[in-house]
Amino acid sequence: MQDFNHQQLDDLIHSRIRLAIMSVLVTLDEAEFNFLKEKVQTTDGNLSIHLSKLEEAGYVAVTKQFVGKKPVSSYKLTRKGRKAFETYVDRLEAMIKRP
Amino acid sequence: MQDFNHQQLDDLIHSRIRLAIMSVLVTLDEAEFNFLKEKVQTTDGNLSIHLSKLEEAGYVAVTKQFVGKKPVSSYKLTRKGRKAFETYVDRLEAMIKRP
Repeated sequence: MQDFNHQQLDDLIHSRIRLAIMSVLVTLDEAEFNFLKEKVQTTDGNLSIHLSKLEEAGYVAVTKQFVGKKPVSSYKLTRKGRKAFETYVDRLEAMIKRP
Repeated sequence: MQDFNHQQLDDLIHSRIRLAIMSVLVTLDEAEFNFLKEKVQTTDGNLSIHLSKLEEAGYVAVTKQFVGKKPVSSYKLTRKGRKAFETYVDRLEAMIKRP
């Protein structure tokens, strides 16, 4: 039975930018900030805000390192984030399945 | 090549309630307001607001009839709405495709 209940979709993931971030991260071990920015096509500020939300939710983990004198942040999905993304995608696919 | 550009996703469709509405309508010739409300699991007010946005975009058409003394509104996807939904789903599926 197809489920169209909009509340079934995790709002933390559904925002377009966060969905794009999660979709990149699920394909990779980890990704640097600038790489994500290019893939997702957004600004530094927006990307930071949405990455913070995903971190707060425990979906994404960040590692900060210095490469020379330059700080580099790398992001990866946590186990919880990967599970949440899988649930989200399953529900989304059930919802949008065309006749 | 997988596309993670979040702007590729039609914002008019991406809102969870509107996505749920479109997902119901794409499976049907038309649907009455109360049927949509039950499927999408939202309030009268919210459903009205989002249906109006979809109407304004030309994605949904409404027919108003009286059944006895009771006004009944029926909604269906327009050709433009169906095309927009197909484009949205194609792009979404390309984005969320898991490795």
